[in-house]
Order: sequence, then structure tokens, then C-alpha cells
Amino acid sequence: MKNSIGTNVILTLFGESHGPAIGAVIDGLAAGIPVDEAFIASQLAKRRPQGPVDTARREQDRFQVLSGVFGGYTTGSPICIVIPNEDVRSADYEQDKGLARPSHADYVAQVKYGGFQDYRGGGHFSGRVTAAIVAAGAIALKALDAKGIRIGTHILECGGVRDADFNALGSPDGLALLDSYLDALNGKNFPVVDDIEEAVTAKILDAKADNDSIGGIIQTAITGLEPGLGEPWFDSLEGVLSKALFAIGGIKGVEFGSGFGFASMRGSEANDAFCVEDGRVLTRTNHNGGVNGGISNGMPVVFNCAVKPTPSISKEQQTVNYITGQNQALNLKGRHDPAIIRRICIVVSSLMAIVLCDVLAGARGADYLK
Amino acid sequence: MKNSIGTNVILTLFGESHGPAIGAVIDGLAAGIPVDEAFIASQLAKRRPQGPVDTARREQDRFQVLSGVFGGYTTGSPICIVIPNEDVRSADYEQDKGLARPSHADYVAQVKYGGFQDYRGGGHFSGRVTAAIVAAGAIALKALDAKGIRIGTHILECGGVRDADFNALGSPDGLALLDSYLDALNGKNFPVVDDIEEAVTAKILDAKADNDSIGGIIQTAITGLEPGLGEPWFDSLEGVLSKALFAIGGIKGVEFGSGFGFASMRGSEANDAFCVEDGRVLTRTNHNGGVNGGISNGMPVVFNCAVKPTPSISKEQQTVNYITGQNQALNLKGRHDPAIIRRICIVVSSLMAIVLCDVLAGARGADYLK
Amino acid sequence: MKNSIGTNVILTLFGESHGPAIGAVIDGLAAGIPVDEAFIASQLAKRRPQGPVDTARREQDRFQVLSGVFGGYTTGSPICIVIPNEDVRSADYEQDKGLARPSHADYVAQVKYGGFQDYRGGGHFSGRVTAAIVAAGAIALKALDAKGIRIGTHILECGGVRDADFNALGSPDGLALLDSYLDALNGKNFPVVDDIEEAVTAKILDAKADNDSIGGIIQTAITGLEPGLGEPWFDSLEGVLSKALFAIGGIKGVEFGSGFGFASMRGSEANDAFCVEDGRVLTRTNHNGGVNGGISNGMPVVFNCAVKPTPSISKEQQTVNYITGQNQALNLKGRHDPAIIRRICIVVSSLMAIVLCDVLAGARGADYLK
Amino acid sequence: MKNSIGTNVILTLFGESHGPAIGAVIDGLAAGIPVDEAFIASQLAKRRPQGPVDTARREQDRFQVLSGVFGGYTTGSPICIVIPNEDVRSADYEQDKGLARPSHADYVAQVKYGGFQDYRGGGHFSGRVTAAIVAAGAIALKALDAKGIRIGTHILECGGVRDADFNALGSPDGLALLDSYLDALNGKNFPVVDDIEEAVTAKILDAKADNDSIGGIIQTAITGLEPGLGEPWFDSLEGVLSKALFAIGGIKGVEFGSGFGFASMRGSEANDAFCVEDGRVLTRTNHNGGVNGGISNGMPVVFNCAVKPTPSISKEQQTVNYITGQNQALNLKGRHDPAIIRRICIVVSSLMAIVLCDVLAGARGADYLK
Repeated sequence: MKNSIGTNVILTLFGESHGPAIGAVIDGLAAGIPVDEAFIASQLAKRRPQGPVDTARREQDRFQVLSGVFGGYTTGSPICIVIPNEDVRSADYEQDKGLARPSHADYVAQVKYGGFQDYRGGGHFSGRVTAAIVAAGAIALKALDAKGIRIGTHILECGGVRDADFNALGSPDGLALLDSYLDALNGKNFPVVDDIEEAVTAKILDAKADNDSIGGIIQTAITGLEPGLGEPWFDSLEGVLSKALFAIGGIKGVEFGSGFGFASMRGSEANDAFCVEDGRVLTRTNHNGGVNGGISNGMPVVFNCAVKPTPSISKEQQTVNYITGQNQALNLKGRHDPAIIRRICIVVSSLMAIVLCDVLAGARGADYLK
Repeated sequence: MKNSIGTNVILTLFGESHGPAIGAVIDGLAAGIPVDEAFIASQLAKRRPQGPVDTARREQDRFQVLSGVFGGYTTGSPICIVIPNEDVRSADYEQDKGLARPSHADYVAQVKYGGFQDYRGGGHFSGRVTAAIVAAGAIALKALDAKGIRIGTHILECGGVRDADFNALGSPDGLALLDSYLDALNGKNFPVVDDIEEAVTAKILDAKADNDSIGGIIQTAITGLEPGLGEPWFDSLEGVLSKALFAIGGIKGVEFGSGFGFASMRGSEANDAFCVEDGRVLTRTNHNGGVNGGISNGMPVVFNCAVKPTPSISKEQQTVNYITGQNQALNLKGRHDPAIIRRICIVVSSLMAIVLCDVLAGARGADYLK
Repeated sequence: MKNSIGTNVILTLFGESHGPAIGAVIDGLAAGIPVDEAFIASQLAKRRPQGPVDTARREQDRFQVLSGVFGGYTTGSPICIVIPNEDVRSADYEQDKGLARPSHADYVAQVKYGGFQDYRGGGHFSGRVTAAIVAAGAIALKALDAKGIRIGTHILECGGVRDADFNALGSPDGLALLDSYLDALNGKNFPVVDDIEEAVTAKILDAKADNDSIGGIIQTAITGLEPGLGEPWFDSLEGVLSKALFAIGGIKGVEFGSGFGFASMRGSEANDAFCVEDGRVLTRTNHNGGVNGGISNGMPVVFNCAVKPTPSISKEQQTVNYITGQNQALNLKGRHDPAIIRRICIVVSSLMAIVLCDVLAGARGADYLK
Repeated sequence: MKNSIGTNVILTLFGESHGPAIGAVIDGLAAGIPVDEAFIASQLAKRRPQGPVDTARREQDRFQVLSGVFGGYTTGSPICIVIPNEDVRSADYEQDKGLARPSHADYVAQVKYGGFQDYRGGGHFSGRVTAAIVAAGAIALKALDAKGIRIGTHILECGGVRDADFNALGSPDGLALLDSYLDALNGKNFPVVDDIEEAVTAKILDAKADNDSIGGIIQTAITGLEPGLGEPWFDSLEGVLSKALFAIGGIKGVEFGSGFGFASMRGSEANDAFCVEDGRVLTRTNHNGGVNGGISNGMPVVFNCAVKPTPSISKEQQTVNYITGQNQALNLKGRHDPAIIRRICIVVSSLMAIVLCDVLAGARGADYLK
């Protein structure tokens, strides 16, 4: 499938950072889902670089819906959304041609594509392509919202500053609290729950001042998901979500619920006891992050992603020129994010929305999300 | 795809813990791969419960190859391997019918299958099914080995005891050291590199003595993989491997290279500088775990998996009877592993071998592994 | 996918004619479908050689259901059905080793698998494998029947003798007539509607007497299918059904409705006018075979398949020995069908049932057929 | 997959007849394939309406390559080609809103999409979308040509006039003759081999003069294909090609080699005897159309498609208004083709090229076509 993901609802990405446009085709969405172009635009705005912690590249994200939408609703046919590239400065990349930026895909692209890749700005590997995920995801998020399913992603940790941990919320009290957190996140450009924007920003600017970058951990919660979604073995909810998550450049780890924290727990602590509450089966704790045996159990699905520091830094680095085959020093020009952790949150929520539409379409039929 | 994984080499699992048999079909392997039944048996032996840290259930794993092998070689047609179930004590499960074992799939199976699931011993969700992965994986491991690709998985951490960390090994010296580690692992039933078997065993037996269980972290390294394997976006090597890994019950987190450790690193530490060494492009450090932009970079692919404590414990637990809809106490009988961390290692290596065969078949053609 | 077909309900075939067993895995069927082993056996009996027009090879088809069925119902997990091979006479094939039987797959298998294929009796290419389709299809047929969907296949033409043409039946009168035809077919071992069994048998025995074989045309009707199933473009109902049909050895052509007859029609004859009849939209004629734009229109889905004469004939033939690379004469031994047209009918209906379960699961959700 | 086809090389279609644009994404093509925009334009010209036998709608087909091509070569990333719609007269369709055009997809689209479909000009079902197939196919055709694989499609029969039959050509003499036929076809706008353009045109104009339309049979040959391509059972070459062919509106039958002609043949006539000729294994006759057991045998792959008469005719027809639920007469306006048989030939060749790239990429690896 390569640049496509999904079985019943399928997202396909295309485009390069410095080519004419990037875009997405989303196929298999039910007919009759309202498509709100203003909402798509507002979601794109959240991903767009916008303050001191982001790159100075200014993207307008003037998207066009070429197909699959008629009279404000999905038609059931594939939706192609195109976002032309603007404010492109290819010259920054021409001078470093052949230099493999460390932790970037330049070298592997050279090996894989034999020199035919569009090397400018990372080409098809560029984070720029995630704008198409956000645009397509905006439609999916609205479709899920109509079914009572909410998705939110926040910065859980950056530079040692930590936000509220969704995974610590059990039932029944934690459920309402979590929904209030997700509501709050939707209205924010800087996706944190507690009052830590300033502290996180300071950490990022510290790194920027050092011509360096930093990573962090982001956390996503999905609420309102009915139990029974996912499959045993290879289409486990965890497997399906993680495959999508690792598509996003910079994500190097995914853990559900207590994740790596399980390593220091015993079964008697780790097991989430089931209980009946108002006729509904819940668990008091949510160490399993809402998933048992690969299948949703009715509790919020909660997972964390490790985000590595942005590879593009202004400090001098040692690397290889893959054209000459020589070791060479690299002094990166161009406009870079000292941390992508703010911008990546909306990308994760958007992509998860698309994948969940796929899971629901498989389980409930193509028309379920109409 | 549900119980199948792969695009060009496809593994399909079937069977229930207490049904007639479990098994696997593996399709798409090239013709002409030697199939060594003694090796399959020895791999199954590594997964089999065998000492004080494992369940007392005694499985013989008398497998039969029903198809796809002729004269000791793969024919290119689907290989069906069946492993009949033996030493089944269903009565242990009859008395707990309706009781959702915490952190197990009993409840979600009830919701998903509406009471038609085979509830005995976890049915199709049972870890028993992983024997089929090991049997099929044995063929894949041999095919990879012939191409110079090795896979090894060890217990990195359990009960606070830690083994040597493959991720700390860079190039060029670390490469040979890692291969010697993998060679050593192949000969061991207790998969650790350093002299920690006794210490880990003690921690597991501690938990067992408390009628409890413990989790841990396992680590896998793949060496000899050429650069350029994997795809940008949705078929990233990380995504493809993680989707398979999350199929294995008990795995709740996957991190590549430094993974969640990236959260406290800066770009200047995290970036793996490229260098030319004897005409080969390597990186001195391997924080990225051998993968850049979703694609292998020629360094060892290294990842960790978080393994949760075995859910089945003998301590009394609170739960729900999904038939009566009442809260109820659960006192588990049956034979359980106080930790699955030893047995899971060979499952992970086996499954990774199958997935890599798929990746290689896609990149190099179906006949590449002949 | 190779030996698998389907997106949401997936059939996988394995096995060789002279290996230990052939079989199938069917995954994705809803939980709760009754599995009637006696019905499976009776369907297998229809495919089994049984009279003068079939091969003398006697197969018992003692199938075993290894997984996915519990207490007489599907569990929702993969169903593996195994049929051991009996009455195998491999010696017949040893003496012709290396001789490419004309119109058989021997030569292409040699090229594709490089000599590692199981060449005995056609190996994995053998029609023997279709027994697994019939066994799996029996479950699918019952599931469809519960939804009011019937499938029947008959010999439309063989040796110049023709049966009633389902495609000539329009609405409303033809609908009831067609259902009565399908009912009658279900009870017959020789699948014809009109009183032509004797005439067809005579034609086949004529060919047999000449050490020769004959082909023919079979026709399938599916009734009770709701309108709106299928997709525009690549998952058209016609495309999905035809892909499955061409899997069956001997089928060399597929036409829907008037098919090749359209070549000599004008639009004004060929167009099926819509009409409202008792509040239901129907077409008076059914030249389109129940499919418009790749999607079911509520009329019976009717298609014909061309079946080539059985390639195995006792007449001397000229061919190539692919081991010596020499031209050589071939005098086939072994037990062969002078015509497979009787036995292929139940295979087609069975396979169509599985494919329709897949189409319905995709459109209506995995649980629709429960 | 719905609007996508392929496993390793994947084509995705989008767009509606009267929307902003139609287009295609083709993913998985090797890097380094030359992309000749002039050739794409010339292929589109062959599909474009251009004479008395075609619709009067004038499409410019000003395509844009948005991604995946850099410096005149494929990059290995998805190629998105967009063709804006021009000369659109939606008003023709507004007045017939709700009227199900017989043999068209209007009614099934209404059932499937519940009124949300773009009904103008058939929307996503429109033959207009095949322009995207031709544009994408032009790249695939060039890639195949570099490997010595040629594809050509001609009108075999229309209005009783017949062209030379490729299926009658055996080996060795027929092979060179067939290649000369394919060469000749490439240079022609009216795809016939013999001198029958005038006769066919007359038949089509006859139908047009009667406010009617006619169908026919087209025939495709693929030469230069190595033996061993395709799979037994579900990815048979016949199955894979036919699934793609039935995606094209108007194709209602597909037969390989002698196809339905096998019905009146005996095995001794139908079997293609193998022979060694200059060290190469061939068959004297080619009744099997180059495919045995689902796999190419080295002879030309030859198949015929039945093309139904264009459903849009100017004669008054009876039909249903699916909005009012009433029977109603239909007098079609708009600009229609009296026969699509000329225009469909290039679409078939283009689509076959894409599918063959997929087959080759699966068998030989993604880079084979570089």
C-alpha cells in the first residue's frame, strides 16, 4: 500500500515539499458527511507554523477540494484535497545537495531511489505532507464527532515540563474530566491542559538559542469509542493505530496505557478490574489504555508517542556527501522548527480520526458514519 | 486482513487454545527455501513452557506440515502448519465461565462475538496461538539467515535487572559485538546476554511466590539488513514492524532506537552522524535504531517492547460476570506463567522474520529469498 | 494476496493434489452463523466424482474443522477446514515427470518455481483444491440463505445441448420462475434445469469414447441481492466476481447478462428500462445481468462462464520435456474427467457465496451476516 | 480498495464528470522511469472525442503532474495527475434530475449514496474519469516498452464488421506478425488493423442516424511478457486483468484466448501443444491466450472484451424517476457517443499497462521497471 493506509476507508498521500502541491485522497467515507471548509481551514491553522517555537516558513495552506464533495456533503466517492506549495525557497537546499542531514531521510532516499528523488526540503518525506493529513482528518473528525467520539492530543512532556496525564484517569470520575480536557484542547493553538505553555515555550526557545532542538512526549485520548472495536492478532487496535503513528516523521515510540511503565509493575497493580457502573461495564483504572487483547474495552483509548528532537539544527554536524562519498561538515541553512511537538499534536489527532473511520467502517459497514 | 499480515508474504493464524489445533498458513515465500523440521522443533522448544518461571501446561507441539513443502524445500505454494492441542484441561475454565479476567480479552470477546466465542482458555486470543508463529517463523529465519540477516531478542529488563543494551552499540566496533550477542542468544533457552539468568529468575519466582506476576522490557536487534528497505509514510519499517508486534498479547509499547529516551535529548545528541567507513556509510551512534524516515539506513534495526505482567494471577481479583451482569470476585485456577517475558522473545524474533520476508519480497521480488 | 481473496471476509487456500491434505481458512465471517457439517458433506458430495462422466479417482473428502467453530456456530475467528488426501496414485505422475501436459500448468509451474513445485497431479494447481472452496462455501451459502440470497449454477451448454437461459428471464414473472429453478438445482447432482441430463451425458461419453474431452458454458444466478452492492471502478461487482471466477481452472471467459451478445445489439434493445412494480424498482429485461455501473440493481445477478475442455486426454499429444528441453510425445495415464462441467457448477456457487459474504460484510459491517 | 487497484503498483482514481477535476494517483512505480508529457498528451488525444462517431463534448485534457516526477523522471513517490474539467454543461443534466437513465448507474448511485452523489453527467461513474487512466497508463506503457513489452487494443468486431483476429496467430510466424500489428495500432487514431475503418464508421453512423447506439468486441494483445507471471488461484493473470477490465464502464464480458469458443471444442483441438523452437518453449496454437493455470506461458496474452452499446441514446425510453418514485418517459439531451468502442481501446491498453507494472513489481521487485 505504501502511501495509502486503511482497508475500508483509505487515505493516500502525495506530494513533495518543493513540488507544485501536496495532497491527499480519502476513499470509502460514507456519503452524506457534512464537509465544513472553514473547519478544515481552522485545523490547518493549528498545524501551521505561527510563533517563535516554529519554523519561519509561512504556508498559506490554500486547499482545494477537487472531488468527492457536492453541495457541502461527501458523495461517497474519493475526496481529493490539494494544497499548493507556496513560499518555497529551494535554493537553501541546492547548496547542500548530496549532504545527508543526520537523522533525516536524505541518505536512505538516495539509496532507495538512486538519485531520482526530489531532494529539496526532504521531498516526499517532508513534514509538509502532514498538512494533507490534517485537511483530510478534519472531515473524519467531524464524522466521528457526530457519533460522540472525540480525539485530543497534547504535549505530555517537553524539556522536563509535564502536563496532566490522561492515563491516570480512571472511571467513573475521570471520564468526565477527560472530556473536559479534550474540549479545552480543541480551542487551543498550544495543546496543553495545565498552565504550562510558558514553561514549555521557554524550554524550546532555550534549545533554539543554542542552535539546537528538543523532543518530548505527546499523549492522545479517544473517548466515546464503543467496546468491541479492533481485532485479535494483526488488526489489533494498537497495531492499526501504531502503524499509522509511525508514519509521522519524528515519532519513534508508541505506548498504550501504562506502556513501558508496565515493566516495573506486578499483575496485581497492572490489571484493570472490571466493574458495573450504572449498567455499564468499566474499569476503575485504565492501565491498559482502553484496549484488551487488541480490542477496545469501552474505556478511553490513551496512548503516548515519543517525539524525537527535530533533526534540522543550525549547529555544525559531521556527515557524508552521498554524491562524492566523502565525509563532510554540514552547516544547515533554511528555516526549521526547534521543536515539532506543538505542530505534531493536530497531525496525530487527524490521522487517528481517519484510521478510526476505517475501523468503524469495517466493523459497522461503510454507511455507519453517514 | 484481520488474522493475516503481509502484502507479498502473508501469514494467517487460526486456532483456539482448547480447540482441535492451532496453526498458520504462510503464503508468498519463494520456492526453494530449505525447510528443516528439526529446526522448527527446536524453535518451538524455546517457546515451550519448561522451567519454574513458566506455566505447568505441557505442550508437545507435534506439528504437521500439510502443504507447500516438497522434498525438503518450499514449493512456492502456501505452507500450512498445524499443531494439534494436547494436555487441554477445559474444566478449569468452565467454572469461571462469564467471569471477565481483568486485563484479558474475555470481556471484549463477549462484546465483539456476542457469546459465540470459544471462551475456554482465551480461545483464539490465547498465547497458545503464538506457537504457530514460531513454527512459521522458523522457515523465515532460515531464509533470512541465508541472506546474512540475523534476528535476536533478549530480556532487556525484568524486575529491575537489566541486560546489555543493544541500542548503545554504535559503529564500527559495536557491529561485530552485536553479532556475537545474537549468536550467543540463538543457543540459549533463557534469552539474556549478560550473566543475569539467575537474577531474573529470582525476580519472577518472587512474584510467583506472591501469587502475582511481573512484566519487563524485551529488545530485538536485526543485523545485516541492507539500507533502503521500508517506505515513507504508511509502510514505514517502524510501522510495519510495530503493527506485527502489537499483535502479540502482552506487548503494550514499542520504541525504536532511543525511543522514549528522545524526550529528554536535544537534536545535537540525538542525531546520528553519518560517516564513511571502509567505503560503507554508517552512523557512529544508533539512536535512530537503524531507521531514518521509515527506511532502514544500514545500521542494526533495534527496538524495545514493553511487556505487561501476565494478567492471570492467583490473587483474588474483583471483576464482572458478563453473563449475569454482576460484580463478582475471581479466584483463578488453571496453570499460568508468572511472566511471559522469557517465552515471548522467540515469538517476537519469529514474527519479525516473517514480516521482513514480506518487506524483502516487496522490494526485491518474490524470488529474492529463494 | 496470491492464495487469498477478499477484503473483509477472506478465503485462503492451501494444499496439493498428492500432499497430505488440502484445505482452506476463511476469516472475517460473523460470529453466530450455524455450521452444519452434514450440509458441508452434502455439498462436497456434489463436487465428488460419481458417475461415468467423471474421473475414476475416488475421494472421500473426510473434512475436519480445526478452528473457528464452537458449539455448532462460527465464533468469529478464522475457520480452518482440512481435507486429507486419499486414494492418491502418485506413480501415474512419476513416469511423466518433466513432460508439460498441454493446456495444464506444468510448464508455467516449472518456470515460476524452478523445479521446486510439487509436480504430482498438478500439485497446488490441481482441481482437487476446489474441494476446500466447496467446504468453506457451504458455510457462506447458509449465511446468505438466512438473508434470502440464493445462488445456483447450471450447465447452460455442452456439446451443443442447451439448458434454459436465466438471462432471458425479466421481471416480474421471471423472478419467481428463476427462484423455482434455483430450488430445483439445489436438489440435483446433475445441475441442469430442463430435461437434458441424458443428452449432455451422451455428449460427454462420446468425447470419452474418443479419448477426448469437451467444454461448455455454465451459468450462475444470484437472487435476493439488494441493490447498491459493489463499487464504481475497481471493486465493481463484476470485477470482484470475475477475479474469483478466473481462479477456477478451466474457466476462460466470464460475461454478465447478455455479455458478448451485446456486440450485435443496439442501445435501444440492450437498455433495461426501469419500472416501478409494487413499489419496487425493477427492470423488465435483464440484459445487464443485474449490474449497472458495477453495482447491483436489484435484479438477479446472472453471468456465464466459458469452461474449456479438460486438458487431460488420453489421445497422444506432442509436447516438451522441460527437464531435457526436448520435444516428446505424451501418452497420459491417470484418471481424468472427460468434462469438468458438471463438477465445476458447485465450485462456482460456493466461491460466489464466499465473495458475496465479503461484499456484504464490507457494505453492511462484519456482523451483518450473523 | 474501492477506487484503487494493485498491490505493489497502485492506481487510485478520483473525480466527477462535472466537478472541478478528475485525476489519478499512481503509487509504487520505480524511481527513474522517464515521464514524457508529450506522450501523455498524445495518448489523451487518442481517447478524446474527435470525429463524427464520438460525442460532441470537447475536452482539452490539460493535465498537470502535481507530484512524483522530478527532472523528467519518476521519483518513486506517488504521482498525482490532475485533469481539470472544461466544456461542462451541467444544465443538460439538471432537467433530467431524478430520472434513472436505463443501463446507466443513476439508479444504483441513488440507492448506494442516498441522494448525496453528484448526479451530473454520471458523476464519478462517468467515462470522463478514464482520461485519468490514460494519463497514468502512458507512464506505465513507456516503462513496459523499455522492457520489450507491448500492448495494443483494436476493434475486433462492430456492427458485424470484423478485424484480424490476434487469437488466430500461433507461433513462430504469428509472433512477428502480431508485433507488426501492434506497431501499426500505435500510430492510429482509429484502432483497427485491417482496412475496415470506413465500414465500421458507417455502422456507427447508421446507429447514430437512428438516434441509437451500438456495441462490439475489442481485442487486446500483450507481447514480450516472460513466462511465469501471475499466480495460481486468486491472483491469476486472468483474474487480475479481468478485475481491472470490468472497472471500465461498458465492458460486460472478458474472454481469454478462445474463451467462449472453447464451449464447442474438444480437448484435442483446444490444447496448445508445447514445442521447443530455437531453444525457446512456445505453443503452436494459442487457444489459451498465453495463460495456463493463471500464469503467463510466454505466448502473447490475448483477450477479448464485450462492449455494450452506449446507454445514452436520443430515442425516447421508459424509466423511473427515483425522486418521485413514478414511471416516466425519458428524452435524453446532452452530447453522447453513438459508440464508445473506438475510445475504449486506448483506455484498456492503458489500464492493462498499469496492472502489468503491478504484476511485474510483485514478481521482480519494486525496482524492476526502473
